[in-house]
Order: sequence, then C-alpha cells, then structure tokens
Amino acid sequence: MSFNTFGRVFRFSTWGESHGPAIGAMVDGCPPGLSLSEADIQPFLDKRRPGTSKFTTQRREPDEVRILSGVFEGRTTGTPISLMIENTDQRSKDYGEVAKAYRPGHADYAYDAKYGFRDYRGGGRSSARETASRVAAGAVARLVIPDVDIFAYVSEIGGDAIDPARFDASEIDSNPFFCPDPEAAKRWEKLVDDARKDGSSLGAVVECVASGVPAGWGAPLYAKLDSELAAAMMSINAVKGVEIGDGFAAARLRGEQNADPMRPNMDGGNDGNPVFLANHAGGIAGGISTGQPVKVRIAFKPTSSILIPVETVTREGVASEIITKGRHDPCVGIRGVPVVEAMMALVLADQKLLHRAQCGEV
Amino acid sequence: MSFNTFGRVFRFSTWGESHGPAIGAMVDGCPPGLSLSEADIQPFLDKRRPGTSKFTTQRREPDEVRILSGVFEGRTTGTPISLMIENTDQRSKDYGEVAKAYRPGHADYAYDAKYGFRDYRGGGRSSARETASRVAAGAVARLVIPDVDIFAYVSEIGGDAIDPARFDASEIDSNPFFCPDPEAAKRWEKLVDDARKDGSSLGAVVECVASGVPAGWGAPLYAKLDSELAAAMMSINAVKGVEIGDGFAAARLRGEQNADPMRPNMDGGNDGNPVFLANHAGGIAGGISTGQPVKVRIAFKPTSSILIPVETVTREGVASEIITKGRHDPCVGIRGVPVVEAMMALVLADQKLLHRAQCGEV
Amino acid sequence: MSFNTFGRVFRFSTWGESHGPAIGAMVDGCPPGLSLSEADIQPFLDKRRPGTSKFTTQRREPDEVRILSGVFEGRTTGTPISLMIENTDQRSKDYGEVAKAYRPGHADYAYDAKYGFRDYRGGGRSSARETASRVAAGAVARLVIPDVDIFAYVSEIGGDAIDPARFDASEIDSNPFFCPDPEAAKRWEKLVDDARKDGSSLGAVVECVASGVPAGWGAPLYAKLDSELAAAMMSINAVKGVEIGDGFAAARLRGEQNADPMRPNMDGGNDGNPVFLANHAGGIAGGISTGQPVKVRIAFKPTSSILIPVETVTREGVASEIITKGRHDPCVGIRGVPVVEAMMALVLADQKLLHRAQCGEV
Amino acid sequence: MSFNTFGRVFRFSTWGESHGPAIGAMVDGCPPGLSLSEADIQPFLDKRRPGTSKFTTQRREPDEVRILSGVFEGRTTGTPISLMIENTDQRSKDYGEVAKAYRPGHADYAYDAKYGFRDYRGGGRSSARETASRVAAGAVARLVIPDVDIFAYVSEIGGDAIDPARFDASEIDSNPFFCPDPEAAKRWEKLVDDARKDGSSLGAVVECVASGVPAGWGAPLYAKLDSELAAAMMSINAVKGVEIGDGFAAARLRGEQNADPMRPNMDGGNDGNPVFLANHAGGIAGGISTGQPVKVRIAFKPTSSILIPVETVTREGVASEIITKGRHDPCVGIRGVPVVEAMMALVLADQKLLHRAQCGEV
Repeated sequence: MSFNTFGRVFRFSTWGESHGPAIGAMVDGCPPGLSLSEADIQPFLDKRRPGTSKFTTQRREPDEVRILSGVFEGRTTGTPISLMIENTDQRSKDYGEVAKAYRPGHADYAYDAKYGFRDYRGGGRSSARETASRVAAGAVARLVIPDVDIFAYVSEIGGDAIDPARFDASEIDSNPFFCPDPEAAKRWEKLVDDARKDGSSLGAVVECVASGVPAGWGAPLYAKLDSELAAAMMSINAVKGVEIGDGFAAARLRGEQNADPMRPNMDGGNDGNPVFLANHAGGIAGGISTGQPVKVRIAFKPTSSILIPVETVTREGVASEIITKGRHDPCVGIRGVPVVEAMMALVLADQKLLHRAQCGEV
Repeated sequence: MSFNTFGRVFRFSTWGESHGPAIGAMVDGCPPGLSLSEADIQPFLDKRRPGTSKFTTQRREPDEVRILSGVFEGRTTGTPISLMIENTDQRSKDYGEVAKAYRPGHADYAYDAKYGFRDYRGGGRSSARETASRVAAGAVARLVIPDVDIFAYVSEIGGDAIDPARFDASEIDSNPFFCPDPEAAKRWEKLVDDARKDGSSLGAVVECVASGVPAGWGAPLYAKLDSELAAAMMSINAVKGVEIGDGFAAARLRGEQNADPMRPNMDGGNDGNPVFLANHAGGIAGGISTGQPVKVRIAFKPTSSILIPVETVTREGVASEIITKGRHDPCVGIRGVPVVEAMMALVLADQKLLHRAQCGEV
Repeated sequence: MSFNTFGRVFRFSTWGESHGPAIGAMVDGCPPGLSLSEADIQPFLDKRRPGTSKFTTQRREPDEVRILSGVFEGRTTGTPISLMIENTDQRSKDYGEVAKAYRPGHADYAYDAKYGFRDYRGGGRSSARETASRVAAGAVARLVIPDVDIFAYVSEIGGDAIDPARFDASEIDSNPFFCPDPEAAKRWEKLVDDARKDGSSLGAVVECVASGVPAGWGAPLYAKLDSELAAAMMSINAVKGVEIGDGFAAARLRGEQNADPMRPNMDGGNDGNPVFLANHAGGIAGGISTGQPVKVRIAFKPTSSILIPVETVTREGVASEIITKGRHDPCVGIRGVPVVEAMMALVLADQKLLHRAQCGEV
Repeated sequence: MSFNTFGRVFRFSTWGESHGPAIGAMVDGCPPGLSLSEADIQPFLDKRRPGTSKFTTQRREPDEVRILSGVFEGRTTGTPISLMIENTDQRSKDYGEVAKAYRPGHADYAYDAKYGFRDYRGGGRSSARETASRVAAGAVARLVIPDVDIFAYVSEIGGDAIDPARFDASEIDSNPFFCPDPEAAKRWEKLVDDARKDGSSLGAVVECVASGVPAGWGAPLYAKLDSELAAAMMSINAVKGVEIGDGFAAARLRGEQNADPMRPNMDGGNDGNPVFLANHAGGIAGGISTGQPVKVRIAFKPTSSILIPVETVTREGVASEIITKGRHDPCVGIRGVPVVEAMMALVLADQKLLHRAQCGEV
C-alpha cells in the first residue's frame, strides 16, 4: 500500500505530484491554541525553495503556502491543518523521454514494477518536490516544541568535509551550501560548479542537531526516538544512510571510549539532570532522549539526474541510453538541509506528545 | 507512550523483561495455512542463544519457545500466534548496584527520566534479551516469504574489517563470529578475547542481504522499504547507524559512478526484468524494491557493560563510579546477526502483504 | 488527539471547516490503474448537496470536487488522491450569537471544554458539511469494489415508518426523502414540512444494504466487519444508534428464531456457497461476511438546530436562551443517506484489501 | 488481516483460542507507577467466570490470571503488561461434529470462507472465551481512570425489560443476572431456566454507565468517543446493536424534546461546568464527552449454540441438521456485563491519554 502519513499522535500526511496542480500536507493532532499563520511557514519554504543560486535547480516556484483549515482567528483549533502549495512552473515537455525509458537511480522502474504504470512528469510522486510539503508541516511541528532548537548543515560534499575546528553555526545561512565552515564553502563553490558543468552530480552529508530536548522523550521499543528518526530521514529522497551520534564510528570504538560519563549537576541548571562528559550516543539511550543534544547524520547520494549518458532499458525492454535533461540540483543534499530539519521537528513534536500521553499523572 | 508493535499488516508485538518470568511475542496478520511448529522457530533462537562460545555472554538460557495460539493441527489459522520463552537463568543478585547508579551508555538514566523508576534487573525491558522475541517472530515471517533468501554476517569488529575478496558465505556459520572471511575470523578470536580479558568491549558492523525479493515491494512515502528497514534496524539494542546499499560511501560518489545501469534481460530469467550492472542502491529505488538483492549495513556500538570503571551519578545525584559486572557479550554485534536477519524477514513479510493489498487486481 | 483518518489499508483523511475556504479528503492506499475523474465523484456529491428541496437546508453550495493528485491520464496511480471542495456560500454573519452561547445538542460546549475555544462559524469542524468529504472519498471506494451494490434509504422519519410490504427500491430516488415506500414519502412531505414550519426538527432511521459482498471479508477481532461499520456509522454527525441485521430486535428472539439456517447451493451460483434461509445476522458472523447482503440500520437524532428556544448558558456561564437561526435541515437523516452509503463503501473497500493482504497465496 | 489490537495510545492485544493451552492479553501504553497485582484483576475475571449459576455455562475454569511482564515491585513500569490465563477445562471431544458441519449463527462458515479452515474446538478464536482477556485488560484500564465509575447491568432478557422505576444499582450484584430490578430478576429465573430446559436461548440488552468522565474526552472525527464505543461494543461476541444515550428512541423525538438544556452551575461543583437538565445525548456531543454520564446500550442476540436442530450444510456442502451440544450460556448477554464494562474502561482510558496528548500545555 501507499502510506503517506507519518507520526503517531502528531501526524502529517502529504499528497501531490511534481507536475500536478498542487501539492500539500495535512497535519493532524496539533495542539489547539497555537498562534499560526502562513508567515510562520513561508520562511522555511523559502529556505528550501529552488532557484536561489546556481548550485540548485533552476526550476522557479514561489512555493507559496496556503492554510485551508485548522486555524481560526490566528490560532490552531486542534482540527486538521490543511496546507496547500500550488505548482506553477511545470515544464512537462522536458520529461518526454523519461516516459519511455527508465532513469537509473530513480524510482521509474520500481514504480512501473509496483503500480503497472507511473506519472512520469518530473518523477510524479517520487519527486523531491514532495519535500516542500514536509517542510511546511515541519514548520507547524516547531510550534509544538518551542523550547527545542533545531539546525542542520552540510558537513561534506563529494567527499570534501568541513573542518570541525572551523565550525561556526553563524556561517550556515551565509552561503548557498548551508556550510558552517567558510573555507569549505569556498572550496565547494568550485566543486559543485564543476560537477554541474560536467553534467554530473555530487553526494553530501547533512548533520542535524536538536538542543533543548528534555530527557525522557522516546517510545520504546518500536517507536524509539532513534528508530523514528531513522525512518524519518531514510524516507527523504536520495538518503542512503543514517547515523545517531557517532554512528558507524562507534563501531570502531572500545566500550570505555564510547561511554558518555556522567557527573552531578552542580549548578542546578539543566533541571538538576546529570552533566554528560561526552555525547557519543547522540543524545539517545535505549531509544529515549537523555537531555543532551540529539545528533543525526544523513548521507545523500549524488543526484541521479545527470547529463552523462547511462545505459538503461525502455519500458518495452529495449536497450537504450539516457541522459536526464531538465533543471536539476547538482547536489541534492544541499536542499536536503531544511527537509532534514523539518523531519527532526516532526519526530520530536510527536514524541513530546507521546511522552505526555503516557507519563503524565493519572 | 510505549509502542511495542512493529509492522503494518504483518505485525508483531513483544513483551517481557530480562528477569521477569518470561518474554514473548504475538504475531498478528500471519496468513493462514502455513505449516508451523516450534521446530521451525527453535533453530533461529539457538543461533542467537547466549553461552555458545567464550565470545558471547555466559548467561545460559535454553530459550525454548512455546506456541500458545494461532496454530491448529500444525498450520497457522490466521489468528494471533502467541510465542513464549521462559526466563530460566536469572541472577538478579548480580544487578544490585545497577539499581543505585546509572550505567553510562545504558538506558538506565533515560528510563528513570521517562518513567520515574525502572526495573533495573538486567536492564529490564531495555535488555537485549528482548531480541529473542524478535528472532522468534522473524522465524514466522520467513514462512511468508519462502522465495526470499536472507543472510547476515559480521563484516567488521573493532575496526578490523573482512577482506571482500575472501568473502565466502559458506564460512559464516563455521566460526563463532558469523564471519564470512576465515582469516578475519581468526584475527577476531584474539581481538575479542583480548577485549573480554581487559573488561572492555568492541563494536561491530553487520551486513544483511536478502535475495529473491521481487521488484515492487515498498510502500511510499512514509513506509518506504528503506525507511522501514532503517526503523527496524535502529530499534535493535546498540545499533547507531544504518546504511542501504552503498550508504555513506554513496555520498562520496559522483552521479555517474553511483548509477546502477540497466540492460535488457536476454535470457528471460528474472521475470523478464532488466539486468542491473551494479547495485549501489542496495536493491531499493524510490523506497521500492528493484528486484536486485536488498542490502543493509548496521553499526553496533561496543557493549556498554564493561568492567572498566566509568564516572557516573547515583539516582540521588551523587558522583560515583560504576563497573558493570555480570555476564556480558564483549561484542554485542555478533549476536546481533540473527536479530538483523529477523528484522529483515519481518519487514519484507509485511511489505509483501502490503503490496498485494494495494496492487492486486480489483 | 484529533484522528481524522479512517481505514486500515484503504484509508481516507478529511480536513476542513464549514466556513473555511475549502474542505477536502485525501484517499491513500487506493489501488492503481482504476479509471477516475471528477465525473465519477460528482453525482454522489450532487445527491448529498443541500438546497435541492424545501426539506433540506437552503444553503446552496455547488460542491464541485477537484482532484488535485493521484490520477494520471485518467487512472489512479496508487499515490494519494487529494480531493478538494471549495466553500462558496458561507454566511458567517448568521452565526454571531453561536459564538457567545452553547447550542444544546451541538458540539459547541464539548469543543470549548476540549480545546479551550472553537471555530464557531457554522459549527466549524463539527459541522455536517464535513460529510461531503466522506461522500467524495466514498465514490473512490466504490471503484475498489465494483461487484458490490450499495444502496441506502430512509425507513422512518419522526417515528413514522415505511411499510416493508410496499418496499420498492426504484422509488428511492424519485422523492426528496430517499424513501422506498411512495405512500410514506407522501406522508413525510407534510410531516417534515410541519416540523420545518414549527421551527422544530425530526429524527430518522436510515437503512443500508450492500449486496455482492463475498464471504470472508472482515478482520477479527478488533477490526471485525460489524465493528468497523459501527465505528464508521457512529462517526457520522447526529447518529446515535447502529444495528447490524436484526439489531435490537434480535435481543427479543429465541435462538431457534434468530438462526439463519443453511442449505446446499444446488444451482452452483453464489460461488457454490450455501444458501441461507434467513438473514437475521445482516450478512456478518464472527465479524466476517457470510456472502449474504450486509445490512445496517442507523438512527439519526433530530437536527439540533431549531428555532424553538432552549435554555442554555453563555461561554461566561450566564443563563441564556438560544434559538438557532440559519439554514438547517429539518431532518438531517435525509441527507445522511449518501453519507451512510459512502461509509459502507469505504469500510468494504478497506476490508476487501485487508482480506487479500492476509489470505492470498503465500 | 487479523487485527487483534484495540486502542490508540492505551492499547491492548489479545491472543488465544478456546481450547489452546492459554489465552492472554498484552496491554501497551499503560502509564508507569500504577499499583498493580493479580489481585486487582482477578475480581473482574471472577465476575465473568462461567459456572457460577445454572444460568450460565457449566464449563468450569478457574480463570486465574498471571502477570508476566510490565510490573516491578508492585507497580507498572510503563512497558507492556502481558497477562495470561491458562485454559484448564477443555473438553475437545464435545466438539467433534462441529468440525464437520457449520453451526448457524456461529463464525464457522465465515472462518472457513476466509481462512480455508478453522480451529473448530469450542469455536477456536471466535469463542466468547476470548472476552476473558478483555476483562483482564479492562481491569488495568480502570487504574488509568480512577475518577471514573463504571457499571453495567442487564436491562432486558428475551424481551422482558426491567421497570426503570424499580431501578436499584445496589441490586445488580445480588442476583445471577446483573439485574437492577429485583422483580425482573425473579421473573428472569423462570424465563432463562425454561429456555435452558427447552435447549433454546434468549437475547438480552445490557446498559452501561460511566460517571465521572470530565468534559473534553473524545478524538474527532474518526476516533470520536461514541464511534470508539460503538466499535468496542460491536466487537464483542453476539452483539448486534449499539446505542448512545437515547439511541434509536432519539430518532422518534422532535428537536426540542431531544435537546439537553443547560443551566449555569450555581454551586461551583462539577468544575464550574454547566448543569444539564437532561441527558438524551448519553454524555457525548460531537464525539466529545460533555461531563454528563456516558450511557451505552448494547443488544446481545440469543446464544447461537442451542439443542434445537437447525438446518445446515457440512463442509462438503451436504445438507444436514445440527444441534450444538456442550455447555453453553442460555443467555450470553448475562456474562456480557463485565465484558461491556471492560470495553468501556478500555475506551475511556485510551481517550483520557489521547486528550492529554493533544490538549496539554505546549
């Protein structure tokens, strides 16, 4: 089946195809009384919007969101919040040959195998355009967790990583790569531009940190906070790997290196919780938040749409070659940043509500 | 809340604590008419069973499963299958000091923060003992996907990886590490034994391959096959990272390197599907299986229970040090192998049933 | 929380308020390849549309549905189908006093108690206008069960019942009451008109029959076919009772009277299934369809919006009286008929897909 | 599929067949820290236990419940609570002929049609024995809603109703019928005994009232409190009808008769909520509790197992007659009383947790 809903109590569902009349999200389970207008959502969509630099697709969509329900006199009512974004810059003619042959790395063949046919225009439902709906829903989720601060950034493009010593969060929004290391950002200009000119593409690693998450969020065993985050991130287009905290690096540590020792909290801050001396765990133990920053790393593969010919087959099974024209991101991970942030917010909002459902006073 | 159920239509729920009278699983949604007895499940439990070598915990449990419902005259009836495994070798006295102080890396502090108190005996619900229930449920799942072949192995311990050139699947079950490279297996004997003697522990990487999965399984968008696998694997104790196909390595490839080119299927095998010339994608595109082997890599952190003292705090917030006595796996990833296989089977069985729900003839 | 989704595998979610810009439904899990356009949905909306006779509300909405996603070249793609109906005839000024005092029988007080405030315009989310979204979704559900014939009718208004001996299905659509007994229809004209002139309202009983349902649909134990139908029908505005088959009358029968005896099927029709000599059970046994017609009876209370003053309190807790002006149905059960049909279709489509998920060949 | 789980956040799943080794329930999402032992559950099972009078089945089961998980040192831990009841008095030989022919009114034919075969011993999974698991789970649910008082009673057997003027709640537990009217209880002795001697059976109506439910519980639109109650009650064996408040009688009232007028609360009790002058609505408006007592009426059909021969067919499709020997309740509605109470508790516990998930402070 087609499960287009995510979340347990704070849930959102998305609908829409790349080249249909509109895309949208329905947010259900949002608490009542929260101040909400389009202006709370639009900045996040603007951050994700294509066409803002030569390093992203030149498709130009205003991506203006409309709230169709669930808000009355500027406040959420507790009923479903319907969000709609009209598609305006559709050039379906660009996609003629995609109808006939399968683009390797794309969902084309898999969709045909599953559904018997597909909406081939711009990838249809499998297009990364759907992530705009997530970003809109994520903006609502942030209202539910006002004490949590979420930010993501690109830490690596095409194998070229930032230098942690130069990490500066204030740099993230001052370059087109969401890069916290200004020197890396400079290198990436040439790196990404070269790939674009070659008709090729690059992968990227995105890191996301949520601070202000109190200890105790997480729903063991099969809705653990880390399990939900893994599902959320792996559901984003082009994502092939997810790490919590040290991730795969932890597999190379010894137990005493990987431990996050604790000390008493002397200054009474942090709710009297212990102070952790390290955060290899990425803020999650046993599937439950520990009060430390929640840290996730996500691997984006290089954009599958490239101008370099690749062997493929047609729908009729005939050998062919395909190059994917159109307006594509040379590095899809860059615009993944606001999407990753949105998914983090959506998971945390859900887990917050789950936690108070079970663990409040009876 | 506490979500102890996994799956959409083929669902299983687990219950039980490390030192309670028993643990168990309830499998719901299993098709009727499948031949099933305890003998179909026991071999998988035996593979996971502790105490089989000095490289795993010396806790000795027979782990005998009983089927309490859902089977009549040797066949599944379509009603819930209740599986129970009694706990027999509980030494609760080993865990006295765990009641008082938090073991870093364990769920102790997080459970206290969430629930206000915890069953500290052997980690209670957060113990890896729960994975025996998954293995039992996974054995049932395999019956639903008889054409799928699943195997997992350890590819790396403590940073020491196998040599892919020496990969030999027939070796996996002939050493205590589920290692497909006999030379690595030899090295690991000393590596793991040394860690054990040091009172330390090691991380590991497990890889799992499912072949025979037809193209078309997967439920976009938020129950994508890769998203479900990520959730399933990340819900296993000690797992900190999940990769599909090339995973993080894909983030360092260019688009043309990462493409999985297709050619027509000349010999008519493989259901007439195209032949892929590579499998960077790990058998999944757009969240849907492509007919290639489904490949997942999983990072296990080193066992948190070590004999080397670590700074911590008591429940009362007093500074302390803790060493975790008891009988622990020096490398918990090793016994993760049958658990990973079980989760793969459980996800695939669910996706198979989901697929035919939506995509059969109307 | 606010659960605005119904169904297990064929699921629909609705959003929207009576006086917002639009209402809508998202249908998820619909099989691919079904022929679908607005023209398949509109007739059902027209049947439910207000303003068609003096016996229903004079609010005039064209209720034109737009398909925003999930259909490509006239066929469903297997992705979410987003349906939107714009609200055009909103007279929010009619509802000024409703903002201040609670209308007995309405959700006003309960919504305030739950959410702290409410969208009072036309009842907001609790308005029966939401049922248009159900009718639209139900039209899609019918495509999934082409062999099932569903029809509903009003069998009783204000205590005046039809004469079963005069039942004529062909009459149902030829009077404004969906009444299968032309003499009752005549009586009801005066009955309903009198109530309307009095500023009062009447209750009604609706019956719904689905024939062509094969034996075997139903998901015991907690998604039994009858349980799902009960939930579906009780979720409709103004419904206060649901019966399957003989319902409460069965509680007055003896076992031998209530039995539905079976005989062999001599003519080979009906898939070789037995012939039932009665249908007290309403086509469902043990929560599973028997192959007989599925029969449901639903009680609608009288419209709560009346012009006769009723004691109430204001939001500030001051004693008051309220009459509910505006344009209301004197008997809301009448327009309940297409809604009941839609819910029947939605439940059956879901159960059909559920059945084949579990009970197909492995 | 087979959905054996009920609830959204406070969830329970049941497993087990009439003649398997045991039956059980798993309760998930229960808040931590509640005092719980077998002694809290056993009285409810004893109330439902068969063999307590000649008016119920002579099957004698001790129905002793064991708690296998989720409780530590006498308190719930927030993890799954596994409850098991062993089956002890199984006389499978009684059911030989049931294997061959279908008992009208039972699930026999429907299960065969769905699953291809069935566990015919005592009805297998479709046996009312499963309701013991519900009663056990319901006892846990009551702990979550300590301020709610729930009681049910039989108001009608075989068409002979109690006299509301003689209603005396204190009588309910002093006769074998859970009858609040001592005169009716006397009449029913002969009525039920006669039916039993005739080898026949009688239907019944059960009424259930929950007081102390605050205004605001309920999850519109498709998990409305009344919708959930309807689903819960209709899922009980032999139930054919559910009414909320006046139910079908409301369909015969005029709007002004059916209104529940409100007055200010002068004495400050009831949380300052308005005082309702009537309760036609049964304590629910718009799917949300109003603070009035929640009232449900449930119709139980006569027990289908009777000693009077009924026409039927064999599994091979041959005409036959069947009488159902064994030890059956002449009026299954009587023992339905504790089951109805349990389902009420389970729905309310779930809705309480749902409410605080969404409507607490952000």
